[in-house]
This record gives sequence, C-alpha cells and structure tokens, in this order.
Amino acid sequence: MIKTKTFSILGGDPRQAHLANALAAREDGFHIYAMMLYEGIKLNKKIVRVDDVKMILPQSDVVVLPLPLLSNGGEEINAPGSQRKVTLEECLNYIHPEAVVLAGKVPPFAREQAAKRGVEIIDYLEREEFTVLNAVPTAEGAVEIALRELPITLFGATCLITGYGRIAKVLAGLLRSFGAKVIVVARKWSDLAWVNVAGCQPVHLSEMAEHLPAADLVINTVPSMLFEEDKLTLLKRSCLIIDLASKPGGVDFEAAKTLGLKAEWALSLPGKVAPITAGVITLDTIFNILHERGAIP
Amino acid sequence: MIKTKTFSILGGDPRQAHLANALAAREDGFHIYAMMLYEGIKLNKKIVRVDDVKMILPQSDVVVLPLPLLSNGGEEINAPGSQRKVTLEECLNYIHPEAVVLAGKVPPFAREQAAKRGVEIIDYLEREEFTVLNAVPTAEGAVEIALRELPITLFGATCLITGYGRIAKVLAGLLRSFGAKVIVVARKWSDLAWVNVAGCQPVHLSEMAEHLPAADLVINTVPSMLFEEDKLTLLKRSCLIIDLASKPGGVDFEAAKTLGLKAEWALSLPGKVAPITAGVITLDTIFNILHERGAIP
Amino acid sequence: MIKTKTFSILGGDPRQAHLANALAAREDGFHIYAMMLYEGIKLNKKIVRVDDVKMILPQSDVVVLPLPLLSNGGEEINAPGSQRKVTLEECLNYIHPEAVVLAGKVPPFAREQAAKRGVEIIDYLEREEFTVLNAVPTAEGAVEIALRELPITLFGATCLITGYGRIAKVLAGLLRSFGAKVIVVARKWSDLAWVNVAGCQPVHLSEMAEHLPAADLVINTVPSMLFEEDKLTLLKRSCLIIDLASKPGGVDFEAAKTLGLKAEWALSLPGKVAPITAGVITLDTIFNILHERGAIP
Amino acid sequence: MIKTKTFSILGGDPRQAHLANALAAREDGFHIYAMMLYEGIKLNKKIVRVDDVKMILPQSDVVVLPLPLLSNGGEEINAPGSQRKVTLEECLNYIHPEAVVLAGKVPPFAREQAAKRGVEIIDYLEREEFTVLNAVPTAEGAVEIALRELPITLFGATCLITGYGRIAKVLAGLLRSFGAKVIVVARKWSDLAWVNVAGCQPVHLSEMAEHLPAADLVINTVPSMLFEEDKLTLLKRSCLIIDLASKPGGVDFEAAKTLGLKAEWALSLPGKVAPITAGVITLDTIFNILHERGAIP
Repeated sequence: MIKTKTFSILGGDPRQAHLANALAAREDGFHIYAMMLYEGIKLNKKIVRVDDVKMILPQSDVVVLPLPLLSNGGEEINAPGSQRKVTLEECLNYIHPEAVVLAGKVPPFAREQAAKRGVEIIDYLEREEFTVLNAVPTAEGAVEIALRELPITLFGATCLITGYGRIAKVLAGLLRSFGAKVIVVARKWSDLAWVNVAGCQPVHLSEMAEHLPAADLVINTVPSMLFEEDKLTLLKRSCLIIDLASKPGGVDFEAAKTLGLKAEWALSLPGKVAPITAGVITLDTIFNILHERGAIP
Repeated sequence: MIKTKTFSILGGDPRQAHLANALAAREDGFHIYAMMLYEGIKLNKKIVRVDDVKMILPQSDVVVLPLPLLSNGGEEINAPGSQRKVTLEECLNYIHPEAVVLAGKVPPFAREQAAKRGVEIIDYLEREEFTVLNAVPTAEGAVEIALRELPITLFGATCLITGYGRIAKVLAGLLRSFGAKVIVVARKWSDLAWVNVAGCQPVHLSEMAEHLPAADLVINTVPSMLFEEDKLTLLKRSCLIIDLASKPGGVDFEAAKTLGLKAEWALSLPGKVAPITAGVITLDTIFNILHERGAIP
Repeated sequence: MIKTKTFSILGGDPRQAHLANALAAREDGFHIYAMMLYEGIKLNKKIVRVDDVKMILPQSDVVVLPLPLLSNGGEEINAPGSQRKVTLEECLNYIHPEAVVLAGKVPPFAREQAAKRGVEIIDYLEREEFTVLNAVPTAEGAVEIALRELPITLFGATCLITGYGRIAKVLAGLLRSFGAKVIVVARKWSDLAWVNVAGCQPVHLSEMAEHLPAADLVINTVPSMLFEEDKLTLLKRSCLIIDLASKPGGVDFEAAKTLGLKAEWALSLPGKVAPITAGVITLDTIFNILHERGAIP
Repeated sequence: MIKTKTFSILGGDPRQAHLANALAAREDGFHIYAMMLYEGIKLNKKIVRVDDVKMILPQSDVVVLPLPLLSNGGEEINAPGSQRKVTLEECLNYIHPEAVVLAGKVPPFAREQAAKRGVEIIDYLEREEFTVLNAVPTAEGAVEIALRELPITLFGATCLITGYGRIAKVLAGLLRSFGAKVIVVARKWSDLAWVNVAGCQPVHLSEMAEHLPAADLVINTVPSMLFEEDKLTLLKRSCLIIDLASKPGGVDFEAAKTLGLKAEWALSLPGKVAPITAGVITLDTIFNILHERGAIP
C-alpha cells in the first residue's frame, strides 16, 4: 500500500470540477492537482492547476479521470470545457503503477490498453451505490420537469410510473409526498408487493392499458418500447410524458408529437440539474473504493 | 331559497376559465353561462358564451365574478383576456336580488355599492379553506423554483423557512420529503413546538442569524423586512432566496443584488404554476359557500 | 430579576421525578432540590432530596409544583408517590416573592390563595406548546392500543378519526405513515381543507354515518357524545373504538359493550406511555416560560 | 388446465382459517371446503366443513396445506387447532394429479414423497412477494413492542437497526415517520446508499460500536451473533433490544439479562400480531401463483 495523499483530477464536465472542489473542502490535507477541468467554475484555492500530465501523474496516488473517460469516439481524455487535449495513452505513460485510477464509462479497449501497462482503471459507474445515489438527482430533475410543464398541482394528480428500479423507487416516494396518486406498473410480483408497501398502486404490466386514460403524468423508466402509438392514444391530450430510460428509450416520440402529446426525453439529469451534488456523489463513491482497497484508512 | 341551477361566470384570468370548465365537468346538470373569460382556453361544450350581461344575470342563481373583482383602480370587472368591458354597476343592475354573488378581493367601496342594490358580494378570498388549499400550489411553485435554480439536490440541502403559516407548513413538509434539512424560524413557542413535531428544526426568530451561514435556500413567508443587508451578508454567495411574502415582502432585493445573491420574489404562484388547480380550488370554495347557504343540497 | 439558579421540585407522579432528572442532565449548573417525588424512580446524583419545605423554598428561584397541583379535592400538594404531606398554604408561607412558581391544573381558589401572598402560580397546562408537544405521546399511545388490539395491520386498515385538533393532526399523520386509509370527520371547512392537504379523506360531520361501516378503527378526539347507539350499530363488530376525548368523552361505552364492540377510553396517555418524555415536555415548557420572563438568558 | 373452482383448505393456525374466510369473501364463486381449521374462529357461511379428506381432495382444483406443512417432526399435517389427525400420505392418496397444491415450509422429504405420487407441492414461503408483504406485520409488531416497553416516545428516540433487508427497510421507514432518529448498520455500500436516500443515518458495520451508547432502541434483523457481551456493555441500561432475526438470532440474551438489559426475541410476528392480515397475504400470494400457472384468469 502506497501512502495515499496526492490526487490528480483531469478533464470532465462541470461535475468533475465540483468533485475537485468537494475534495478540497474535506479536511484531509490531500494534495490536489487539476488539469483540463471545466472552465468557468471557480476552483478552491487548495487545488493546484497544472498544464502537463507528466508533472503530476508520476507522483499521484489517485488519478480521477472523467465520465465518460474518452471524448466522443476518440483516444483523447474527455475534456469539453478545456482547450487542452491529452490522449489516454499519454496519461498511461506517466501513471504510477501502484496508483488507484478511476473513471466512468470505460470502454473495453481502453481497459485493455491500460491493462497492458499494468494499470487497472476502475469504473465507478459500475458501483451500485453510485447508481443508487444518482437516482436522487434524477428523480428531482423529473419532478422539476413535471412541476414546470403541468398546469395542475402534483397534489391530486394521477402519475403512472413504469418500472420499479432505483429511479422509480425514489420518484414514486417523492410524488407520493406531493400528494399525487401514484400508480406503478411492473412485471414482477415482488416489485408489485414493494409498490403496495410503499403506498402506491401496483399494476401488472399486462393491465397497464386500463390505467392510462386516468394519467396526468406518465414517467417511463424502462429502456424498452412500452409507449408505442397504441398506448399513447389511450392517454389524455393533457397528459405529460417524461422518458427517463436510457437509449433506446421507451416512448415513440414521433407518434406522441402527432397525437399532440407533450413528451420529454430527459437523459443525464444529475449533471444537468445538480452538477455540484453529482460531483459529490462521484467523490463519495471514489472514497468507498479507496476504503475498500485500503488506500485510505 | 331559490332553485339553484344557473351559473354565470364572468371575466378573470385563466383560472376563471378553468373554473368554468371544472363546473361543467361536474355531473350536476347546471346551466353555465360565460362572458369575458380569458381567451385562448378551450371551453367545455356545456358552457354557453354570451356577450351581454342582461341576457344572463337576471336569471342566474349564482354569479361568479373574478379575482380580483375589478380591473386596476377602476370600475370595470377585471377581464384581462377579453376585449369586452363591463362595469360593476352594469352587472348590479341585472343581478337577481336572491342570487348568490361571489368574487375575490372585493374592495370596500364595491361591497357598499352592491349593498345599496341589496346585493351581497361574498369574497371567497376571506374563506380560510381557500387560503389553505392555495398553500399547495404556492408551495409547489416554490419547490419548482428551488429545483430549477439550485445546482445541488434538495436532498441534503439546508433550507431555512421564516414563518409557520399555511404556506410554510406545506412547504416545510415538502422539503422534508425531499430529504432536505429544514429549519423553521418563528416567534411563537407553539409554532416552534409544531415545527419540532413536524420533524424540522425550530429556531426562535431571535436566533435566526446563527443559522443563516449554513443555508443553501432561504424561503421567506413573512410580510415584514426580515432580510435586510445585515442578514443577507451572513448568507453564502451560493444561497438562493425565495420571497413568498405579499407586499411589502421581506427581502431587500437591492442589497441582495449588490451582494451577488440570487433572490426571487414569487407572488401569486397558484395562478401561474397551476391555473387549472387554482380554478378548481376556487370552485370547491364556492361550493362550500353554496352548501352553507343551503343554495345547493 | 433575581439570579436564577435554584430549583425546587415537589410532589407529582413519575413525570415530575423524570422532569427533575432531565433538569439535572442539563449542563447549566443549577442547584436542584427535590421533595415528595415519586418513589422508586432513581434520581440523578445532582438532585438533593430534602424533607422540609422551609429548608428549600425561601432560597428557590424556581418552584415546580406538580400536575395536578393539589391532591384530590384537597388542600395538599399532590404527591401520590410519597408518604409526606404538605399543604399549599405551607408552601406559600416559604416561597420567595420573586420566585417563578409553576404548576399544572391550578384551580381558581389556589390561584387566589397564592395571589393573596403575592405569589403568581403559572399554569403550564395553559401553554399551547405544552399541549402541542403532548399530542405526540398521546398519539403514540393510541397507536400502541390499535396495534395491540387489532388482528389486522394498520397498513391497509380504514381508520376514522373525529375532530382535527392537535392530537388528531399528529395521529392522522402517523396512521397515514403506516399505510392506513385515514378518514377525518370534522365540521369546519378549513379543517377539512387541511385534512385533504394532509393526504387524508375529509368528511363533513353531517356525512359521518355513511363512512362508519367501512371502519376498522374509530378514534374519537371530540369531547361530545358523537357515538351513541345509533352510530355504534353502523360499525362492524370487529371495529375497535378508542376514545381520546377528556370527560365526558364521546362514546356510549355501555351501548358499545352491549353491541359487542371493543371500546377503550384512553385518558392521560403521555404520563402512562412515555413518562420520561412527559417530564421533558414539561421541563421544556417551563424553560420557555423562564426565557420569556427573562429569568434565564 | 383444469377448470379451477374448488378449493380445499386444511389445518394450520388461525392464519389458515382467516385465509379461508378471505377466500370466501371474494366474489369469485369458488367452492371452498375446509378441514381441521383452527377452532374458535368463526367461518364464513360459504365454507363447507368436512371431516374426511377423501370427500374433498379428489375434486379439488386447489389444495391449500398449512404453514408449516407438517406437525413437529412428524408425518401429520400441521393442525394445532383441531383434534383430527391426517398424514401427508393420506392426503397424497386423494389429491388429483392436476390440482395445484400449496403449502409453507415444505421439508425436502415431503416434497419428494409428493413427487413420487406425481404431485408438486409449491412452497409459497419461497415467493419473494410473500416475504415482502410479511415485512409489514413484522415491522408493525416490532413497533408495538417498542411503544409498549419504552418509557419515552419514539419521536426523538435514537433507534439503531442492524441489517437492511425487507423487514429493516419497512421498519426504518416507520420509525422515521414517528420522528425517531434512525441509524442503520449494514455492510454493503449500496445498502448504505439506500439508507441515506431513505433519510436514515448509514453506519458501516465496522463502526457500529461508536453508535451504540446513544441508542434508546436496538433492533437486530441479522441472523448472526452481532450483539455479544462486548457490544451489549456499550448500551445504556435503559436501551431496549428487539431481535427479529430467525434462529440462531443475533443477541446473547444471557449476557443481556446479566447486564440488566431488557431484550426480546420476537419471532413469527405476523401470525401473532395480525393473523387476519397474515391470512390475506398468504391468499394473495397463492393467487399470484395461480395466475402465473394460468389456473385462474
């Protein structure tokens, strides 16, 4: 185990800069180097900006690379808020073999490329607590959209959620707190039992259609085409649809438009609605990993 | 008691039109006449539009005038979404003496003017249930602003609310449901006891200053200047301020601007964020009044 | 203003002894004398037991007398857990005229008797925050009874509460948290509006009878005979009735028994179900009073 | 698929009799035969009592055997509230090969014995929704114990729960609703993330000891000896311990007794605190199974 105290934080969108600030706000006395962070976000004075990876990577105990790791389709570290470009290869050249290296959405080829150099890139996106904690800003973002778009209060509104994964659980709880009538559509009996226990109305997927006409708000969390035209026509014209499912999504937006339904595909909400919190969540996850590996006490 | 079945609904902003629609959606078989409603809102087919008060008022059992009753400083019925102008005097000429006449924000002179004609104008704004029910869209509107403006989640945020009247009660409950840490500042020990029971942190007004530095969100509901410069300087630069207090408000917005604080004075939220619900709330209140007077069973 | 630091605590049931302990647990360095406290409750070592009022009352800045102040119908300080007897008169002889004197349920004649000696006895039972805070143990006690007596879960049970005062508000919230369907019967439209906002079903008193057949649990909080035989016959035989109303209560228990209904009149729950908390609540209320009077900073 | 409409319900504790009643209360027109049900529970008139398995089993489409299936260590169907004894063998002799046969806690040898006759016994105890739904009466039962035993309110109490499985999740939510401070001790980071999202304080198992001194209530849900003497000595003498873990449990009750700690091992709560609900839960689970098998539409 190396003596962990120097962090390098590279690239990324505003979340990564907020992560650096959150790290600097801790009272641990870490050395923090930053490079290619998103410009326009004021950094804590404890953070030392540098311009060359070889100045910092060799002595870094922890290297925090961005989410996603690489810029679109490329070899370069993703750094949309910086003019500087650096390839993953260049980083790997200087990373200390005992350093803990973290990133999000690491493609297999990048992992292999690193492995060849004896470097393991840990993908924090695969950590369950990361996904759990990110369900909160996602759910809050969905509530924000609903509050903005609906001409009625959530109090008393009929909201239908499809799926009962992490985001749906948090969202159903929030909507219930607003006094909405919440229907959750799922397929598994155990999920439906939980829905019931949570004070929402459980509906088996096979019976979803019957409940669509009453909905004021539909939120899809299932990445599977549940809302094709036949389902959409059952909705009230005033019903708002929010699709939180990652690609390919679950709503036929073309059909919705034709039917005059307002539908919004809301992706990557945490970074959009709460970038500071998103940075903190990433940092917390990284610390869990460091704890597990004994890299910090 | 006259046989109540004909309603006339006049003027008003979108809420009044939605009120008419909500009335038409009831299964009571009322006759509904409308005049000078807000244009652009599609009306239920059961509503008969007319263009002359003398065609409808003499046989109307219930006359629903708008909120506020009169256009700014004038004699005319408030009708911002209509070209037609009608004075209160003209209405009074035709209202049946046994009709139940309702409006919001009725100035004393209008009340007297009506009384001279033997007409009592009931101000539903003075009904406590109206104010209670409107606390919901107001609180939802404040939450919407907070979700939109804050770069952090409400989950985990420190929110300080001043006052513990109707709106503050609903708002404190909502923010708690989001997982915020909610501090409520009040003056009365019984209010502070309720704050405690509601799971929030009670702080006596005399000790508010100590709690300001931790706040991520401040929501004022007290119509008294609680946030002058001396208080505002205690806030973090990233703190968002929402003032829900009616005039004169409780925040020195000039000072806030100078200090670089984001502050929003959010008035009349129900009509803005949930006009349909606001119409329904008015209608429910009107029905309570009609019940009490035996005008409907 | 005298320098407040010596407390005398006299008589009372277990709550008063717990009050003394809670006072001793504070870090304020008060001198605490106790006399005639309920035996069998272990006292904090900082509390000095004495056996004679004249040893402590003359130098006491705060005198805490019990709730109720006097023993049944008598002249003596209520002290059910002590062999020693002392009259109010005897106490008044020694109380310092500038002392703050507190008690609960002070009958008018005792107040006058004290006034003649220039002593004001403050009745903390009249403080609204005292009543608010005591609603919590009362509501918890009612929930305990329901959990113990009902052969079904509160989750999914239909609970009908009459009245919407302090206890009913806390209780309705708790039952909702259990996932019960909560109906609240009240008379005032504003109360019914709050019931609605709280996520419960509001029912006007005039329509209560229609909702009785569905109830699994009825909780009365109104001190007025709402449940006479005609209403009781509408209930299911398995329905549990809890009457929380002070005398004369709101349930005809004889009729209930004849009908085979289980009915419980649960009075003075705080002292029974949570005597320690009840002592703390009294102490908190006393401190509010002392603050207001400038007797402590 | 056979035409499902005749049910036979045999043996069991009060839950089984309530299950039969709940089945009879449905409007499906089933034929319901009962034998060896728990005496003393009044049965719905639609239920036909019989005294001989060969009269009912051959024509039964669904056979509901008890939980546990067999009497202690024996060959006989578990029927603690009946004089009649019947062996599993005898039942198997008459069960129609196409019948759906359900029971709880089916030992492997019984399963094999049935399989030899071509009968599959489905164990509803293995259904996840059954366990989820039973978490509710278990949690309510634990709350009942806490309310009964603690001399303080749950409001404001510090409650420490170990484990974050189904029961702990429901219980943590309930205790939070009471206004308790809830600490949940778990080992997995994702569980701790959920604890956080649920508004409770997450504590890693490795740091549990630090939090024990503050606890007013400890509830163990982990079937592993977490509370040996070294941990128990860290608790306040007034702390209440409730062990909900199935055998071998998680508390050293001998050590607790020696230390003067009140500790209760609460097993099989659903049948004890809410037998009617427990019957309904079993019935609901059985209907899910019948749906899945196409035995009912």
